[in-house]
Amino acid sequence: MIQVVHTAKALQKLLEPIRFRRESIGFVPTMGALHEGHVALLRESVKENSCTVLSIFVNPTQFGPKEDLTKYPRTLDQDIALAEKCGVDIVFAPSGEEIYPPGFSTFIEPGDVAKPLCGAFRPGHYRGVCTVVARLFGMVRPHRAYFGQKDIQQCLVLLQMVKDLVLDVELKICETVREKDGLAMSSRNRYLSAYDREIAKEIYQALVLVEKAFQEGERNVDMLKKIAFAHLSSFSKIEIQYLEILSYPYLSLLNRLDGPAVLAVAVHIGGTRLIDNIILTFKV
Amino acid sequence: MIQVVHTAKALQKLLEPIRFRRESIGFVPTMGALHEGHVALLRESVKENSCTVLSIFVNPTQFGPKEDLTKYPRTLDQDIALAEKCGVDIVFAPSGEEIYPPGFSTFIEPGDVAKPLCGAFRPGHYRGVCTVVARLFGMVRPHRAYFGQKDIQQCLVLLQMVKDLVLDVELKICETVREKDGLAMSSRNRYLSAYDREIAKEIYQALVLVEKAFQEGERNVDMLKKIAFAHLSSFSKIEIQYLEILSYPYLSLLNRLDGPAVLAVAVHIGGTRLIDNIILTFKV
Repeated sequence: MIQVVHTAKALQKLLEPIRFRRESIGFVPTMGALHEGHVALLRESVKENSCTVLSIFVNPTQFGPKEDLTKYPRTLDQDIALAEKCGVDIVFAPSGEEIYPPGFSTFIEPGDVAKPLCGAFRPGHYRGVCTVVARLFGMVRPHRAYFGQKDIQQCLVLLQMVKDLVLDVELKICETVREKDGLAMSSRNRYLSAYDREIAKEIYQALVLVEKAFQEGERNVDMLKKIAFAHLSSFSKIEIQYLEILSYPYLSLLNRLDGPAVLAVAVHIGGTRLIDNIILTFKV
Repeated sequence: MIQVVHTAKALQKLLEPIRFRRESIGFVPTMGALHEGHVALLRESVKENSCTVLSIFVNPTQFGPKEDLTKYPRTLDQDIALAEKCGVDIVFAPSGEEIYPPGFSTFIEPGDVAKPLCGAFRPGHYRGVCTVVARLFGMVRPHRAYFGQKDIQQCLVLLQMVKDLVLDVELKICETVREKDGLAMSSRNRYLSAYDREIAKEIYQALVLVEKAFQEGERNVDMLKKIAFAHLSSFSKIEIQYLEILSYPYLSLLNRLDGPAVLAVAVHIGGTRLIDNIILTFKV
C-alpha cells in the first residue's frame, strides 16, 4: 500500500527503518500533475531502489511574480493513484508552511550554469529550484534522485550544486519522454488549445532538423540555429523566447561545435511557455 | 596516532569504516592558529564522539578584499601537535583547490540573521562561511559540529542554515574561552602589541558593566548601550565599529529587553579587529 505523508516528521518515521537496514532510497521530486515523463522517472527509481519517494510540491520560490503559480495544475488524487500503479512506496505532499516555515531564510545561489537560457528569462528560478531541492534532499536523504532531461538546465544546475555542496546523492538524468508527434511531455501541455497543441509538435521538429544538419557535418552554430529559427518562424503562433546552442555541460557560448552541446529552445504558444532541448554529440 | 589528510577522498577513506560501524563523528571546523577556545571545542568533541575531525582551512571566501586573508596566521605543525594532545583523530587540511576546484560556483546565501553586526561590516562574509561550512559538512558528514560562542552571529547563521537545509548534523555552541583578564581567545589576538593587548581587556569589561546594569534591572536598550560606549570611549586606542543589543536568536532590533538578547561589539585596536559578546538572559 502506498503511504501518503504531509510532514517531514511523518516521512522521517517511515524512512528510519529503511535507512537502518541500509536499503536504498530513490527520490523523484515533482510539482505533481504527473505525466508519462514523471512515470518514466518513477519506474526507473522503483527498479533501482528498495524504496521510492515521490514528492509533490508546487514550489512558489521558483515561479516569477508574473508566472503561472496559481494556475499551475494540482491533481493530487490522480497523482497518488498513478504513483501507486508505478510502485511508489511513499508520496510526500507537504504544505507551503512545511517547506517554508516562518523564519526560513537560507537560499542556495547557483553559479554560471544557471545564467543563460531559462535563467536569463526567469530571474531567481534556479535559486528557488536549488533551495527547494536541497531542502527536500535533507528531508528524504535519498541515495538516488531522478530528473528529466527535458529540464536540461535544471539538471546541470543541480549536478553542480550536488558537487559543490558535496551532497551524498546520485543524480540520474532520464531521457525526455515525448508524445507520438514528438512534443515533450509537460504538465503545461494541458494549457494548450487543440489548435495550439497541433502546432506545438513543431518545436521538436525544429530540433530534429538541426540534429540532422549537425549529423551531416554542419558545425557552425549560427548556421545550425538559423535552421531552427527558420522552421519555427514559419508558424505565426510560435513566439520564440530563446533558441541557443551552448556547450555541454557548462552552457557557455560557442561559435563552432567541437564537443558536446545543448540545443535548447523556449517558446510561447497562445500564452503557454514550452521548453525542449536535445544534446548534440559526436558519434564515435 | 593522529592522521593528517589533505583531500576529501583520503578523508572519506578514513571515515568510511567509522560510518559503517555507526559510530559518531564530531567535527571542529577552524582556520587553524589554534588557541584555548579551539581546544575547548576539540575536547568537547573528543568527549562526545567516537571520532573527532579537525579541519584547518583559511577560507578565502569569508574575507573581504581589504581584510587580513594573506596575513592570517598559519601554524599547521603546531596545530597538529596541539590537536593530537587533545585526542583528535583526524586533521583535514585541504588546499584551496580542494575546497574551491575549477568550476565551483554554488553559494549559500544566509537570511536576515546575517545582516546586522559583522554582516553589515563584512559584506559576503557569512555567505562565505555558510558555503564553506556546508561543503565541509558534506565532506565530513559529522553527527555533531562544534562552534564557539565568541562568533555568536556565525553560530546563529549556521543554526538557521542547518534548519533550513535540513542538514543532518547537531550544532553545539560552546562558551567563549577567555584570558585571565577577560579578553576572548582569538587567533587575531597575536596581532596585538603588548600595549594594545593590555587595552584589549576593556572590551570584556564593557560587556560586564552592561551585564551588571541589566541584572540590576535596567531594561532600556539605549541606556545599556551607553554604559558600554562610555567605558570603551574612555580608551583612545579603542575604535568602536559596532556595539549593539539585538534579540536572541533572530538578531532583530529592540528598544527594551523583554526576552533574551545579545550584546555584541566589534572594535579596532591598533589595526586589529576584535569581536566579543555576551547573552543577556533573565534568570529564573
